[in-house]
Amino acid sequence: MERATQPGKVWLVGAGPGSADLLTLRAARVLGQVDVWLIDDLVGEEIHQHARPDAVLEYVGKRGGRCSMRQADINERALAHALAGRSVARVKGGDPTLFGRGGEELAYLAAHGIEVEIVNGLTSGMAAAQSLGVGLTHRDFGHGVTFVTAHTADDGGPDWPALCAGGTTLVIYMGMSRLADIRDALCRAGKPADTPAAVVMNASRVDERQWCGSLATLTDALDAGLASPAIILVGGVLAHARHPQPAAFALPLAHATGDSLACC
Amino acid sequence: MERATQPGKVWLVGAGPGSADLLTLRAARVLGQVDVWLIDDLVGEEIHQHARPDAVLEYVGKRGGRCSMRQADINERALAHALAGRSVARVKGGDPTLFGRGGEELAYLAAHGIEVEIVNGLTSGMAAAQSLGVGLTHRDFGHGVTFVTAHTADDGGPDWPALCAGGTTLVIYMGMSRLADIRDALCRAGKPADTPAAVVMNASRVDERQWCGSLATLTDALDAGLASPAIILVGGVLAHARHPQPAAFALPLAHATGDSLACC
Repeated sequence: MERATQPGKVWLVGAGPGSADLLTLRAARVLGQVDVWLIDDLVGEEIHQHARPDAVLEYVGKRGGRCSMRQADINERALAHALAGRSVARVKGGDPTLFGRGGEELAYLAAHGIEVEIVNGLTSGMAAAQSLGVGLTHRDFGHGVTFVTAHTADDGGPDWPALCAGGTTLVIYMGMSRLADIRDALCRAGKPADTPAAVVMNASRVDERQWCGSLATLTDALDAGLASPAIILVGGVLAHARHPQPAAFALPLAHATGDSLACC
Repeated sequence: MERATQPGKVWLVGAGPGSADLLTLRAARVLGQVDVWLIDDLVGEEIHQHARPDAVLEYVGKRGGRCSMRQADINERALAHALAGRSVARVKGGDPTLFGRGGEELAYLAAHGIEVEIVNGLTSGMAAAQSLGVGLTHRDFGHGVTFVTAHTADDGGPDWPALCAGGTTLVIYMGMSRLADIRDALCRAGKPADTPAAVVMNASRVDERQWCGSLATLTDALDAGLASPAIILVGGVLAHARHPQPAAFALPLAHATGDSLACC
């Protein structure tokens, strides 16, 4: 294995929810400095504009459970580049501290003596709220918000009754393949069937689509053509979701959602 | 009241957790275009660099419960500027969809016919995780993360037993004035006293400070000099918090935490 005297540093960079202008200034700067990008599938190509002309861009994506590269291989790839003295941006969709196993990648590299730093990105659940025009923590509807994945390591799913009892707005990731199960579990846990709900697919991207309804009608989002990757939001505050989404009449931005479809 | 033929638009702009380079590219662009900024106290002056030379910058801050301007007055101020035809950035610390009553401001303005758009920002809970070098949703420790405020409209506090049962990492805002109460409530709800915990004050700012310990020792954070505004994090994954925080050996950035103090 190629090994430099001084190993390179690895940045776990959050690329945000999709729209290239939702990157942070820090992320853009780090991306413009490193030798190598290791990129998730869900990261759009628009952000390549920030790469150094001589940077090496490698896709190591995982998408919807179909792994094009195993997690262990991604870890080893990042380590190999760093040991060879190259600076690396591990470019992840959303935020490295929320889902996506950023913490595991950090721990692996740190255990091998590599300097690792997180650069936060916006998570798609926040972008979904932005598009719907709602606050996730409106004080009339609870004390906070829970970001949770419906897809778990042991495939057992989260403790829905406890999450319902917590009274927070629920923002559910990776749940489109089990939408009926989520509806049933939440109703069994005591959520009224008329609890407002929304689904936002490709939040912030040009192909964003929204659906708004209630827990009872949740699977209608599938009939409306929404599919993974999408965010499911459940809670009283979703009654205030707006249509069309504000981006439809937004200030002209390079990545405005001009052809997006609002189903709400 | 001054009233233009065409009202101005209002952007609810998330200024992020503090470090000026954690602003998004979109936020920086919007801030550079509007006529008026209405700014929260917790927003640092570094971001003023993005203002148009002729923009009017007004502080309308609320901090730690001490209101320098009532919420109703802030709403009316934003409305008056918009009706007078001026474009407005309502600049809020963190993210407008998470706490800070962004949803209420949006609803008020929209009800008066004003076009409103949210521009997401990073929330300080995510910045705290970045500084501690942990993922908030590590799959070995739960199914997600809950962002919750300890300070509620009716001052009753959240349903801590339910939140504990949910099994998510807890990220608690506005809790420094009731740290002992939070510790007691979580322990009564069944959280083991040795559950790892951390407190991050001024996450991402040059004066950031960290404390790491357990639920049992949570109030030691006060003895260590940490105070509001700070984020309290509770959950198994905090056992992996790093010290010194990675920013201490970061790539030189304009706002690196050069003089921060790591207590972990």
